[in-house]
Amino acid sequence: MIIKGVDIANRILEDCRQKLQSIKGERRPHLAVILVGHNKASRNFVQKKEEQAQKLGLDFSLFDFPENITQEELVRNLEEIQGKDEITCVILQLPLPQQINTPEIIERIDPRKDVDCLTSTNLCKSQNGQIDIHPPTPAAILEIIKEYQILLDGKHVVVIGKGRLVGKPLVTELMKTKATLSVCDKSTPDLENFTKSADIIISGAGAPHLLTQDMVKEGVVIIDAGTSYKKGVLCGDTDCHEIQNKASLVTPVPGGVGPVTVAKLFENCLKLSCG
Amino acid sequence: MIIKGVDIANRILEDCRQKLQSIKGERRPHLAVILVGHNKASRNFVQKKEEQAQKLGLDFSLFDFPENITQEELVRNLEEIQGKDEITCVILQLPLPQQINTPEIIERIDPRKDVDCLTSTNLCKSQNGQIDIHPPTPAAILEIIKEYQILLDGKHVVVIGKGRLVGKPLVTELMKTKATLSVCDKSTPDLENFTKSADIIISGAGAPHLLTQDMVKEGVVIIDAGTSYKKGVLCGDTDCHEIQNKASLVTPVPGGVGPVTVAKLFENCLKLSCG
Repeated sequence: MIIKGVDIANRILEDCRQKLQSIKGERRPHLAVILVGHNKASRNFVQKKEEQAQKLGLDFSLFDFPENITQEELVRNLEEIQGKDEITCVILQLPLPQQINTPEIIERIDPRKDVDCLTSTNLCKSQNGQIDIHPPTPAAILEIIKEYQILLDGKHVVVIGKGRLVGKPLVTELMKTKATLSVCDKSTPDLENFTKSADIIISGAGAPHLLTQDMVKEGVVIIDAGTSYKKGVLCGDTDCHEIQNKASLVTPVPGGVGPVTVAKLFENCLKLSCG
Repeated sequence: MIIKGVDIANRILEDCRQKLQSIKGERRPHLAVILVGHNKASRNFVQKKEEQAQKLGLDFSLFDFPENITQEELVRNLEEIQGKDEITCVILQLPLPQQINTPEIIERIDPRKDVDCLTSTNLCKSQNGQIDIHPPTPAAILEIIKEYQILLDGKHVVVIGKGRLVGKPLVTELMKTKATLSVCDKSTPDLENFTKSADIIISGAGAPHLLTQDMVKEGVVIIDAGTSYKKGVLCGDTDCHEIQNKASLVTPVPGGVGPVTVAKLFENCLKLSCG
């Protein structure tokens, strides 16, 4: 069965809409997005966020910078943008070009406006339950797991990728469960040795159709948080139509983890903007 | 080969001794240990710490409380002890009795005196490189890995246990490496499926001789951070003498991870006390 991310997203967004109505007249949420260069997936994500902001009736500003911007210029612009009182949330769209020191600039984001929960301050507080803002992609994955009543206790969960947006924060959350975890990445010499015994695979590799039918066991659950482009077409880490012959549940790309992630982002946006 | 934890510990402690001499006259390090109840392993650990403090010439105070102490009493005593100016570091020896809410009392430890790096404040700062204080057991394990030049890139590292002292903070650090990780616990139905393919096993289960020869492959490296008692004798998660027939490297219990952990604790103690 193919998981309907859009349905879950719509439910979350409906909650956001109701919350927005109840706080009318208070501080107006205003989301600013800083986009650098011409990464196609990034431009697509930003467009989705803008469309959703418009549907919700939120203010949205896009700040678009050239691929060759320097660290100093980007930091100066970030600080100028987040310094504006009317801007309540800032997205620094990742990945950034190679010349940019990403960990360094992430720590420059004002934690009070850090809607992606990227700063170590917010990430730590999120992990320790000190704030109710969570990294959107892991939050979306956990929402899907909850919605589809996917049991983790005693199951073998294979996470593919150790990135800042998916693998790292997700594994921290999964360490709180009774699942047996395996975490693979590009350096894993025998990925299918792990995927073949997995009950649940959560993939955030960004490698087009990395995961094929022959690499998984019958009845596996696949949550695909990978996005990449192949011949101009948006791809996940697996082809949901092919793999659903073996998988009991699989999220499609597009229409799976992506829309839920955007909805979780707006949930954070409302929390940061309106308390 | 059996890893000599004591040699590594002695090198670290020698550095501590030299640092102590160079800071003579400044703030004097004073370690306070809060011990509750009659857990045998805990009493053994505390004794090791006291012996080492005496060897280093540090002030050491043991505060011993009965098994049935209430949360309120323990919090009040913790706050009184760490409130004293002359006490520079506090150990709240874990595990605590069942009636105590451990996560709650851990957060009451003053981060400036939290030598075990247990508070979420210190743990987060440690993970993000904002302080140079690290949880002693994972720090000891990483020190052993460095000292014996154990390569992690592309290797399958199996961590047994997801506890607060070993598994959780260790996995956060290993997520920064290029190792493929598996994390097993009591809910893992088929532990040996994982251990049999492991290049490196790091065990913090506290289950006496859980890991036997037939569960590992030839040449495996085993770092045993488990401690428990069997018929009154201190045991690791593996029997190093039996398993060294197959393992290329193994840490003994006692004499492996334990002394390095104590040395790392004193390294933290000096950093907190003398800056």
